[in-house]
Amino acid sequence: MTLLDRLFNGDRLALARVITWLENDPDRRERLMSVLFSRTGKARRIGVTGPPGAGKSTLIDRLIVRFRLQGFTVGAVAVDPTSPFTGGALLGDRLRMQSLWSDPDVFIRSLADRNHAGGLSPATADVMTALEAAGKQVILVETVGVGQTTLDIADLADTTMVVLTPESGDSVQAMKAGLMEVADILVVNKDDRTGASHFASELRNVLEMRHNESGWRPPVLRASARDDTGIEAVYEQLNTHLAFLSQSDRLYQRRLRQSRAAITRALSEEMRRKVVSHPDYDTLIDGLCVSVARREKTPQDAARTVMARTA
Amino acid sequence: MTLLDRLFNGDRLALARVITWLENDPDRRERLMSVLFSRTGKARRIGVTGPPGAGKSTLIDRLIVRFRLQGFTVGAVAVDPTSPFTGGALLGDRLRMQSLWSDPDVFIRSLADRNHAGGLSPATADVMTALEAAGKQVILVETVGVGQTTLDIADLADTTMVVLTPESGDSVQAMKAGLMEVADILVVNKDDRTGASHFASELRNVLEMRHNESGWRPPVLRASARDDTGIEAVYEQLNTHLAFLSQSDRLYQRRLRQSRAAITRALSEEMRRKVVSHPDYDTLIDGLCVSVARREKTPQDAARTVMARTA
Repeated sequence: MTLLDRLFNGDRLALARVITWLENDPDRRERLMSVLFSRTGKARRIGVTGPPGAGKSTLIDRLIVRFRLQGFTVGAVAVDPTSPFTGGALLGDRLRMQSLWSDPDVFIRSLADRNHAGGLSPATADVMTALEAAGKQVILVETVGVGQTTLDIADLADTTMVVLTPESGDSVQAMKAGLMEVADILVVNKDDRTGASHFASELRNVLEMRHNESGWRPPVLRASARDDTGIEAVYEQLNTHLAFLSQSDRLYQRRLRQSRAAITRALSEEMRRKVVSHPDYDTLIDGLCVSVARREKTPQDAARTVMARTA
Repeated sequence: MTLLDRLFNGDRLALARVITWLENDPDRRERLMSVLFSRTGKARRIGVTGPPGAGKSTLIDRLIVRFRLQGFTVGAVAVDPTSPFTGGALLGDRLRMQSLWSDPDVFIRSLADRNHAGGLSPATADVMTALEAAGKQVILVETVGVGQTTLDIADLADTTMVVLTPESGDSVQAMKAGLMEVADILVVNKDDRTGASHFASELRNVLEMRHNESGWRPPVLRASARDDTGIEAVYEQLNTHLAFLSQSDRLYQRRLRQSRAAITRALSEEMRRKVVSHPDYDTLIDGLCVSVARREKTPQDAARTVMARTA
């Protein structure tokens, strides 16, 4: 049986191997993607974002357990270096950790390393593709919701959940950070902390004032992922949002949007690859760096020179 | 007197107007940059990064006061939506705030909006160029040090300062986030909090173990920007690092690196612009989105189709 056949059968080692190739081996990636991609489009894709330390990973751990109880296979991609997946490894919670990591129908991949520290990396979409091709029915992707992210999480997910804590600052700041813009569901985590109730009300007020053309009003839920409270309501809202999307062509519209984002990403990569692989590129760029450092040329002039010479 | 002449004379309104054009008007930007860019290359560029809430903006406020006391003109670009510049607007500190914001030789620009929420935006480098062309001798740029940033702060700054707090988590996590990699100077801010001393020692230990080919060992300093303590030592280390760079050709090497990054950024923009402005682009991409959403084509195939048709 080939490696890909093993992957299609849900073999964890095959999946891990393929993901590593996707991340590190551009030539193999090309061929793999054409096979894997055609097997996708069915899974639910759920994005989870928010500031570092908001408890996103713990919340995802809790949700994975719910999805498993309903019989769904689950894949998760984590890209927040400040809150790595615990796999449920909370204090006094060792047993469940064991079960989550050893469950053959759960696959968790952390992309948190210094090369893509926190935000969505170009590899994120590929890893999600591999997880789905390996038969995962629910794909969760976690990202840090501050910092410019070239890839918007809403371009990868059908449902985007924003996790905040009472300390996240006031709702105006949350809006500023663009988090409110992408939220289909808002979760105020660590709701035992001071100000949780006030903060949730504030968020609701901000949402009330917003124009909402989609017909979906994002719910604001309170939870404590650590204490496993409020998670049922979050799980239910995920299902409610999926049902909402499935009405008329909303899900298809989101998939079109995801496709557009994927093409745009691929376009940047392909164009860059074409230029960089030109035999004159290295010499050319070295000379242009000197001209730009001396302010004899603007970076824009230099870029046009590169394009003209490598066309 | 033209707007640009007024900018070269340090006129604040002219500078504000030009920055707005750089951000929003691609055609004007092109022409402006070719004039502004040739007037740069002399200013000190200092990058300040770290997690949200680490007190970066307050520290920058404090440093601006020091630079002003030494007679330097200062420009600052803030891109952290979670800690906007106070201009010194701390409790009981209203007077100094007034003086900083009304000082004609200080110009602070916040880029923190939902379009580039936190990280370095493509506009950041342009704004720094405008600030220097307007005669600012020290340019400070603040960014959030989590989340994937397409632009690395070290590609914009001669000296990169990383600001952490005792709560930032252990030093291993700081390493993971890639912050240690870029730090020329480390500041443990809010050093009145529990664990500050231990955290600083830990950071020093991590740095000890690291291979350091540049000959510069990043100092770890403790400060409390809010209480204005420890700032002198930070200011001194900034000067020490500048002196270090000025030995042999280190500063020039950093400028070459900045130039390379600027060309790479311009190249992506120019290539994208060329494709997107093609008359067939919109129709083409709409059709390809459908093919990708239906999994008939991979995003890579679609990207190559776009390149072939718009070449």
